[in-house]
Amino acid sequence: MAARAARPAHARGAAIITDQCKAPVVYDLLHTEPGSAARVGILHTPHGDVPTPVFCPVGTQATVKALAPRELLELDAHLILGNTYHLYLRPGADLIARQGGLHRFMGWERALLTDSGGFQVFSLQALRVVDDDGVTFRSHLDGSEHRFTPERVVEIQEQLGSDIAMVLDECANPRDYAYNVAALRRTHLWAERCLRAHTRPDQALYGIVQGGVFEDLRTESAQALAQLDFPGYAIGGLSVGESKAEMYRILDLVAPLLPAARPRYLMGVGSPEDLLEGVARGIDIFDCVLPTRLARNGAVFAPDGRLNLRNAAYAEDPRPIQGGCACYTCQNFSRAYLRHLVMAREILGLHLNTIHNVHFLLQLMRDIRQAVLEGRFLALKETFLGRYRVADAGAREGNRQAWRQRNRHQP
Amino acid sequence: MAARAARPAHARGAAIITDQCKAPVVYDLLHTEPGSAARVGILHTPHGDVPTPVFCPVGTQATVKALAPRELLELDAHLILGNTYHLYLRPGADLIARQGGLHRFMGWERALLTDSGGFQVFSLQALRVVDDDGVTFRSHLDGSEHRFTPERVVEIQEQLGSDIAMVLDECANPRDYAYNVAALRRTHLWAERCLRAHTRPDQALYGIVQGGVFEDLRTESAQALAQLDFPGYAIGGLSVGESKAEMYRILDLVAPLLPAARPRYLMGVGSPEDLLEGVARGIDIFDCVLPTRLARNGAVFAPDGRLNLRNAAYAEDPRPIQGGCACYTCQNFSRAYLRHLVMAREILGLHLNTIHNVHFLLQLMRDIRQAVLEGRFLALKETFLGRYRVADAGAREGNRQAWRQRNRHQP
Repeated sequence: MAARAARPAHARGAAIITDQCKAPVVYDLLHTEPGSAARVGILHTPHGDVPTPVFCPVGTQATVKALAPRELLELDAHLILGNTYHLYLRPGADLIARQGGLHRFMGWERALLTDSGGFQVFSLQALRVVDDDGVTFRSHLDGSEHRFTPERVVEIQEQLGSDIAMVLDECANPRDYAYNVAALRRTHLWAERCLRAHTRPDQALYGIVQGGVFEDLRTESAQALAQLDFPGYAIGGLSVGESKAEMYRILDLVAPLLPAARPRYLMGVGSPEDLLEGVARGIDIFDCVLPTRLARNGAVFAPDGRLNLRNAAYAEDPRPIQGGCACYTCQNFSRAYLRHLVMAREILGLHLNTIHNVHFLLQLMRDIRQAVLEGRFLALKETFLGRYRVADAGAREGNRQAWRQRNRHQP
Repeated sequence: MAARAARPAHARGAAIITDQCKAPVVYDLLHTEPGSAARVGILHTPHGDVPTPVFCPVGTQATVKALAPRELLELDAHLILGNTYHLYLRPGADLIARQGGLHRFMGWERALLTDSGGFQVFSLQALRVVDDDGVTFRSHLDGSEHRFTPERVVEIQEQLGSDIAMVLDECANPRDYAYNVAALRRTHLWAERCLRAHTRPDQALYGIVQGGVFEDLRTESAQALAQLDFPGYAIGGLSVGESKAEMYRILDLVAPLLPAARPRYLMGVGSPEDLLEGVARGIDIFDCVLPTRLARNGAVFAPDGRLNLRNAAYAEDPRPIQGGCACYTCQNFSRAYLRHLVMAREILGLHLNTIHNVHFLLQLMRDIRQAVLEGRFLALKETFLGRYRVADAGAREGNRQAWRQRNRHQP
């Protein structure tokens, strides 16, 4: 690792291009399970191979909240996400480029994916105006005015130097048909412009399928993007308020329309049940703030469902969060101690809960991958979901609103 | 370590008593430097040997803020402090006792020191009433009424199971002579009552010298406590608003009045310059929230003095905080990145700055210890202080007030 890291990212990318005569980030589909769409592959990147299906912890501001890079390595995360919108505003993509790129800036030697900033900008509601050429918005930090165009977000992501970059897309209300028609037209125009603008040979640019909950629009979007021959395809605009049934229905429709040889990325999804349902429908890459955000709120994953450590029932519970769990937190600390840290608002509580939650999802993905390879994925899925009590829609919406309340100005 | 940890603390303490026919926490004075009072020793405890002079990071609420136990081990901390007042209120000393004691509760296998809670209670100002028997106070958490007596704080610390416990003392305004006379009488009465109440054979109980800035009172206090034959002696009521010159003058007076064979503990002191001046006057143990609190405020120690990472000068500074520093932070991250984390209020910034600051003080203590052993302590002190720009009194008071502002109800 150290020897590779000593070579600049461009040089590494170039070497791989010479070797393989194609994009530097290459997906190898290894196996698809008979009887489902679940599949196993490897995503080769200039910063190491990523076994898929993979869950990416989110490092919005050049850090996965409450974890240091060495802890992410210990958890064996292979791919993490950085947010273009946030990094562009602070500390600035140009600054990060002058510091040697995002990998070096944040001390992360494995693979990085950046979103395009589209989702954040379109979450700004009153603070943005979209036209066919791009979107003008005001910073949530200081109200200053900025403009993202397809070319600009590609340039920013090339400055950041992520291994996988995303096109600029317009995220519409998933149930507003007229808005989705208009947004989709722009999203497809922008996808083409992003492709034309993209120059960095050591970085892959993925397209994003949109279209809300509408099957005709989703079909149109998947087909239009597939024609552009992206090295990978994301499915955006899901997990934004529609029901789980609607999300699964759209995945059933869209995934088979995408080229089988290219990786499929379901953006913003990361509950255990959705990871299993996504893999079952042929998804390879997931990202979500859920494990880290829940952890900071005192909620932790366990095989029977989430535990809320604020619950008085854990005040004297000497057991770890999850018996048999291999993470540092479960190996060393009781629920009673973790509850104390949460109640006392101690930073260590955020840290230890985050370690466990990220471990839980990464271990689930490792278990899933092994099961697919051994032809027992559907059995694993059934066993897991038979035991795991899914947080109900009310609890999920409550969590979301509590978080929004606390972070009023953060998109 | 693992084999020792498997035995209950009492069993270990008892074994040591049998071996040594004396207190389980035993100080061995190894060497005093000719030409100064600087000395080197080892504090033997049921949870490992502590090389002295030693700096204890403070773990107020059963955690050194922003550090996990494995990081404290990596930093090679040998002794950390827990706050009796805070732990008594939350989660409760009885709960911690039922969870196997403070070491086990917080996952710390090395030595622990607890204060008596006196300093915190007497910081509560309007919320407490003292009488000869004890002190009644209201919780800063919920306003509930509580009472500490000498016997009660000994009992609480026995429940916590720290290796070193402290007597209950009354902390007076250091410049109010009449108040110090009255407080000192109670402090000495309470010291005797604490000694009589103390039963735990695997725990040492240290006395505390008080007396403000008054030489007659300090002399009286040191002599009175020395007659009680404590296994160790703290000097309290310093670093609470008096000048550094006054503090050094009191140390010059008090340290020689304490038994040379017993360890001397200067409470609440931890700036680099004060550690050097304290060691020069024969102090063996220090504790302070300074390194951890400064770190959370974005201020980090460096050989030329503190750096404030909020300073725009560091926005693109690719250097580590301190060139050649062996800590994880300096080995992996630039000032530019750390500044970004501080400005973006990321938890990782608190963590990485804390690692560096604690390392800086522990490394300084290791350097000091080696220098004393090699007879070059005074040279080290001169070299260090010749380079290190001490934060001026104004800056120190500003920091203190900014912190009070943010933590209005935390004593």
